[in-house]
Amino acid sequence: SNEAEEYENYFGLTLLDRKSDKRTDTKWLSKKQSHPTTVYILFSNLSPFVTSGGGAESSQQSEVKLCRLRHKDVEQYMNQTEDRTLIFLGVELQFHMNLLAARNGRILQEDEEDGLVAWFALSIDSASAEEFKQKHEDCYFLHPPMPALLQLPEREAGVVAQARSVLAWHSHYRFCPTCGSATKIEEAGYKQTCLKEDCPSLQGVHNTSYPRVDPVVIMQVIHPDGNHCLLGRQKRFPPGMFTCLAGFVEPGETIEDAVRREVEEEAGVKIGHVQYVSCQPWPMPSSLMIGCLAVAVSTEIKVDKNEIEDARWFTREQVMEVLVKGNQLSFFVPPSQAIAHQLIKHWIGMNANL
Amino acid sequence: SNEAEEYENYFGLTLLDRKSDKRTDTKWLSKKQSHPTTVYILFSNLSPFVTSGGGAESSQQSEVKLCRLRHKDVEQYMNQTEDRTLIFLGVELQFHMNLLAARNGRILQEDEEDGLVAWFALSIDSASAEEFKQKHEDCYFLHPPMPALLQLPEREAGVVAQARSVLAWHSHYRFCPTCGSATKIEEAGYKQTCLKEDCPSLQGVHNTSYPRVDPVVIMQVIHPDGNHCLLGRQKRFPPGMFTCLAGFVEPGETIEDAVRREVEEEAGVKIGHVQYVSCQPWPMPSSLMIGCLAVAVSTEIKVDKNEIEDARWFTREQVMEVLVKGNQLSFFVPPSQAIAHQLIKHWIGMNANL
Ligand SMILES: Nc1ncnc2c1ncn2[C@@H]1O[C@H](COP(=O)(O)O)[C@@H](O)[C@H]1O
Ligand SMILES: Nc1ncnc2c1ncn2[C@@H]1O[C@H](COP(=O)(O)O)[C@@H](O)[C@H]1O
Repeated sequence: SNEAEEYENYFGLTLLDRKSDKRTDTKWLSKKQSHPTTVYILFSNLSPFVTSGGGAESSQQSEVKLCRLRHKDVEQYMNQTEDRTLIFLGVELQFHMNLLAARNGRILQEDEEDGLVAWFALSIDSASAEEFKQKHEDCYFLHPPMPALLQLPEREAGVVAQARSVLAWHSHYRFCPTCGSATKIEEAGYKQTCLKEDCPSLQGVHNTSYPRVDPVVIMQVIHPDGNHCLLGRQKRFPPGMFTCLAGFVEPGETIEDAVRREVEEEAGVKIGHVQYVSCQPWPMPSSLMIGCLAVAVSTEIKVDKNEIEDARWFTREQVMEVLVKGNQLSFFVPPSQAIAHQLIKHWIGMNANL
Repeated sequence: SNEAEEYENYFGLTLLDRKSDKRTDTKWLSKKQSHPTTVYILFSNLSPFVTSGGGAESSQQSEVKLCRLRHKDVEQYMNQTEDRTLIFLGVELQFHMNLLAARNGRILQEDEEDGLVAWFALSIDSASAEEFKQKHEDCYFLHPPMPALLQLPEREAGVVAQARSVLAWHSHYRFCPTCGSATKIEEAGYKQTCLKEDCPSLQGVHNTSYPRVDPVVIMQVIHPDGNHCLLGRQKRFPPGMFTCLAGFVEPGETIEDAVRREVEEEAGVKIGHVQYVSCQPWPMPSSLMIGCLAVAVSTEIKVDKNEIEDARWFTREQVMEVLVKGNQLSFFVPPSQAIAHQLIKHWIGMNANL
């Protein structure tokens, strides 16, 4: 149907429906945990368990993909330890089926199997990680996660961003920030509650109980002449790599003001108009990269050496050569999976005669 | 000059330059703290110290404004107590002067007075709050903060959003979430460091040390026919008030996906295209409201009673009557200072023959 197709266009890159209402449905969750179709993805030290992308017969770009385990693969581990973190990620999107069911007006009985394929993320200790590697010979833990995570297929990258962000929250937020007591995990991984009975965090709703999402602005800065862009590099980057400037949004700041402040702080360039382009979750550990175009109203660069190592104006031709023709002699930019690449490409595409 | 004017256009609504590089300059900070031009704004229980907007002779819309105190007003309090939180907010924007100075190429001597007017936020205990009220008869603490904060002039609202978010972070994050030990405040209020020597949070950079900013999506949902919009209400709203749907962005989620998830969860309506419009910091305690237009691809409403009380399609005429003509017989929307109001107005302005 037309409606289903339109829906599919928008959801094409999403793998899961988070079904947040199920996070408090303990009966449903426990049934799904042992269901044979349920998918488990593993993490050890925040690194996902992956396998190689399928070798020579595969023409796909992605070099690695997630190991999708079943309940039988993790059952023994889940029974033998209490010290594990399990996060409910959602159910596989099945919009055709859902739309059909909705149209036929059929409502499932309370105990009837709903056919939904649930996904969980399971965080395991290092010793067990070794055991899993031995049992699943083709699989390994992707470490260090960056830039390796960029090799995942886009749909899986979103699931890893979700799981890794929530797991990183649990690994660094084990104690109540309001009173210092231990906390317990609730709502299938999405809530932390202080165990001290009279803690003020238990009165009212507080963000201490919920995972962090840190908004970051990342901006393609355009020269007033429209034909140069400003790219910079940090000391820790590989030699020759330049990319868009970026920085954390501060409390009480708009996205547009954060863009202006960061560019002025890092490169001494003043920004006028700012335009949102697109965003990308970045699970290092839990950022939301908000991508913008920013039009400069001054041109002199004064690099703040505490923040970045270098920043330069590059011509449209220089950037096109690197981006479109893949000529990487003089400098290079991050790979196409990174939002910086997309922002740069977006600018190249604007009013350009390619 | 043209450049200065263009700059002023963009910065017209910002009061302060955060000057984040000064946060670690203890010598500069302590000089500014006792400087006679320095401005102090007070908070007690996260409520700002304000005064009435100037009475009958004032034709301004704002009903309240911040009490701007001087060092002499807070000196005694600062000396008598250690249990106070002081946040450096920034310096007053003086772009004309700066541009001039930059053009003349003059660089200040290290000890020379830079002429910058610094702002600090000071959080005081309840007993001292009473004393300040007695000493400053025209001033009072704005409580409860909502909806009263919306009465502040826009420039001051931004400063309060900054100060209140950072103060709320300190009031609810007093212990290290990684190990449960006490923390100390650094970098003029913008960093918390664990006091336990071997805490893992001291290895590397972690978001546990930095203030939270919680991204929230708020969306004007447009009917597929283009002539209706979806507004909802929560039980705790004043009777008759309807507004845009909203919800927290989850880890690993894009802004666009968060919009689609929240609208489907709360109202059962499916969303196709999403377009960013503008954003607003919301210091309750520390959100960034990201405003979007969202085009519905389905129309049947199924309200999730756990999340909202009601959601309805309103016609363009109904909304114009309430918004433009101020006719508030049937329902009403939030005041013009709220981003929801601006989103609704933005939609009304789109392809409309007003
Ligand atoms: N960072 C957060 N701060 C507060 N509430 C959150 C946060 N993240 C998710 N929530 C959820 O959002 C609900 C409050 O939403 P609202 O009614 O929009 O203020 C809470 O009951 C939580 O379930
Ligand atoms: N939420 C945050 N998480 C990590 N670093 C932050 C955060 N907020 C501000 N910062 C600052 O940003 C710096 C890291 O920035 P970056 O080099 O972009 O990763 C840190 O050294 C901190 O000074």
